[in-house]
Amino acid sequence: MSDISFDSDVTGLLVIDPYNDFISEGGKVWDRLKGVAESNDCIPHMLEITDAARAAGIRVFYAMHHRYRQGDYETWKYVAPIQRAAWSRRTFEYGTWGGEIHPGLQPQRHDVVAQEHWCSSGFANTDLDLQLKRHGVQRLVVIGLIAHTCVEATVRYAAELGYDVTVVKDATASYSDSEMHAALEVNIPNYAMVATTREVIGGMSG
Amino acid sequence: MSDISFDSDVTGLLVIDPYNDFISEGGKVWDRLKGVAESNDCIPHMLEITDAARAAGIRVFYAMHHRYRQGDYETWKYVAPIQRAAWSRRTFEYGTWGGEIHPGLQPQRHDVVAQEHWCSSGFANTDLDLQLKRHGVQRLVVIGLIAHTCVEATVRYAAELGYDVTVVKDATASYSDSEMHAALEVNIPNYAMVATTREVIGGMSG
Amino acid sequence: MSDISFDSDVTGLLVIDPYNDFISEGGKVWDRLKGVAESNDCIPHMLEITDAARAAGIRVFYAMHHRYRQGDYETWKYVAPIQRAAWSRRTFEYGTWGGEIHPGLQPQRHDVVAQEHWCSSGFANTDLDLQLKRHGVQRLVVIGLIAHTCVEATVRYAAELGYDVTVVKDATASYSDSEMHAALEVNIPNYAMVATTREVIGGMSG
Amino acid sequence: MSDISFDSDVTGLLVIDPYNDFISEGGKVWDRLKGVAESNDCIPHMLEITDAARAAGIRVFYAMHHRYRQGDYETWKYVAPIQRAAWSRRTFEYGTWGGEIHPGLQPQRHDVVAQEHWCSSGFANTDLDLQLKRHGVQRLVVIGLIAHTCVEATVRYAAELGYDVTVVKDATASYSDSEMHAALEVNIPNYAMVATTREVIGGMSG
Repeated sequence: MSDISFDSDVTGLLVIDPYNDFISEGGKVWDRLKGVAESNDCIPHMLEITDAARAAGIRVFYAMHHRYRQGDYETWKYVAPIQRAAWSRRTFEYGTWGGEIHPGLQPQRHDVVAQEHWCSSGFANTDLDLQLKRHGVQRLVVIGLIAHTCVEATVRYAAELGYDVTVVKDATASYSDSEMHAALEVNIPNYAMVATTREVIGGMSG
Repeated sequence: MSDISFDSDVTGLLVIDPYNDFISEGGKVWDRLKGVAESNDCIPHMLEITDAARAAGIRVFYAMHHRYRQGDYETWKYVAPIQRAAWSRRTFEYGTWGGEIHPGLQPQRHDVVAQEHWCSSGFANTDLDLQLKRHGVQRLVVIGLIAHTCVEATVRYAAELGYDVTVVKDATASYSDSEMHAALEVNIPNYAMVATTREVIGGMSG
Repeated sequence: MSDISFDSDVTGLLVIDPYNDFISEGGKVWDRLKGVAESNDCIPHMLEITDAARAAGIRVFYAMHHRYRQGDYETWKYVAPIQRAAWSRRTFEYGTWGGEIHPGLQPQRHDVVAQEHWCSSGFANTDLDLQLKRHGVQRLVVIGLIAHTCVEATVRYAAELGYDVTVVKDATASYSDSEMHAALEVNIPNYAMVATTREVIGGMSG
Repeated sequence: MSDISFDSDVTGLLVIDPYNDFISEGGKVWDRLKGVAESNDCIPHMLEITDAARAAGIRVFYAMHHRYRQGDYETWKYVAPIQRAAWSRRTFEYGTWGGEIHPGLQPQRHDVVAQEHWCSSGFANTDLDLQLKRHGVQRLVVIGLIAHTCVEATVRYAAELGYDVTVVKDATASYSDSEMHAALEVNIPNYAMVATTREVIGGMSG
């Protein structure tokens, strides 16, 4: 793991769902995430890595979950359990503070914000793959929320679609150690390298 | 062709790019389209079919081209010719009248507006396939603009992805007879049934 | 869970990776799977469910992992960890017994065998979605191997793409309880219903 | 057009459907193609370009149409017109000479043969996009058959998915000038550069 190195020509940083509802005090899901997030310094690490990527000339991409809008699911024949939960909680409601991006992580000029995804993968039914291709990105560093849902889903898709992926284990969080274990130790190592914030920042500044 | 019939349970009407820039007096591209569009009554037919679909309980889906926003293409390594044209013309510019939907064709409650597409196919890099599946749609009636670019691209994708497609030849238009011929007589018949407004409306009200 | 019911018009049974290397005595991975597989009667349940589906007129689809062929990965710029493992183990090697389907689970006339997948999802880079659409399938019952890799990956993709999914928890297996827990209790319930062989067979014969 | 240049690190040559049934004397469709193919020296150009690509270290990819097998379409709810034609003609029948690759164009070691496609696009429901990504390909030179169906479909998909595309107009063919015009002059210029064999070979050897 000591020789991680990211070439800015082919690497992108992918920030997943940095919504206030997830990672800001007062957000709808923050209370369920903050135990893990505070214990591994998830949010400060997300900020550090984003800064390091920009400093290294690595482009920042955002994979954003669908923001709830009234009428989203009423006419669907089938709704997945995770969508049913989003429907009932109105997570990331469009037009509300919870559906805005956490201060300090807002997209900057020349960042790329992909279209919102409906389920968990930032690639499914969005323009993320197109945007990565059009920018020549072949490798992804992944940070954000939630480790076992959107992060794992996006990592799995990225590997399926042909990207090389590194997940930053202390720049993601979940509800409890059980979900963190499932995502970071059982599943994701099949599809990606798992590294620390220190290692990844070292590899960017190389 | 006399026995076209559309079951509302599995059929969707797909309206492609009904932007003011295409089909309203004063739109950026209207002058190039109106020769063909007026000769085949394209716009009145689009309105008639949309009304007939709603009356028959056939859900209406919208496939909308990306509305131009500053910065869209500046950082891309490669830009397709049709995207380069959109970039220079600022077609369907976000926040302008040209990027709004033609009066009379605005989405209504329970219609589905898919995410904007970047090139020509309403399916590529969007949630159109997901939305069709979630609504149980297996067959598509396609109307809108432009016959040899977005309409043909969307029809080709629809067939590739497994949908049964009918294109309404007098509810689409292009720059000249040459493009209409290429789309409606040379290419699309390989992937879809080609029918008239009369035939399609007959099949909906059956 | 008592009211599961599967309409044969819109339901497909999806059998994932029933290779000898996974589920037959002497297969390359069987020794690592048989602890869990024998304790939950995975193989007999797979057979029972497949028979029940055929009896109920529910079409059977096969999602098959890429069979190793020499030269597969030598020229790739990046290889995912799970692909690196397949490369070194030569799992499901093309032309060998390990790459054949387990006796009793062979495809029958009018079953559909999707193209082989390169990573874990039966949908990624294959014709599975097309085949399901062309057969009118909107709901999937999923059985097979391995719970936390190909099964979970395929279930996640199915939900992302718009299918309604039911996973049969005693007709799948993995290396240990830890992987089974990650897949069946932590992750998959977000994307699918999790049911037993008894419940699913009841819902098919209804 | 004088400054075409292809870097072997990011360029792939894509050969579409070089089956005996299309381009060999005695093939099922050759009689319909040979008028155009002989007038523009299509087959010799395909051979020349493939040789030039190999000499320049540009990897060769094959996009191959589904070879007909009995039972392919019998159970489909909907079959596209072009698939209905393939069904009735048994084009590229599996196990026959017509379904083999034209002598002189056979894949060589380290070439990549993508999975067969069911309709017209070499990308739809196949692993072509994955294989291109895993080999770092961002630009495609496209040759092969048939100009207005599989070639145009594949070019459109390539542009939609984010590839830079160049089509070689005298290394493709179709049934008549009308189809060639539709493909090469009306449609493809929206999605790709159109060049001659001479120009493309010049750009490879640069």
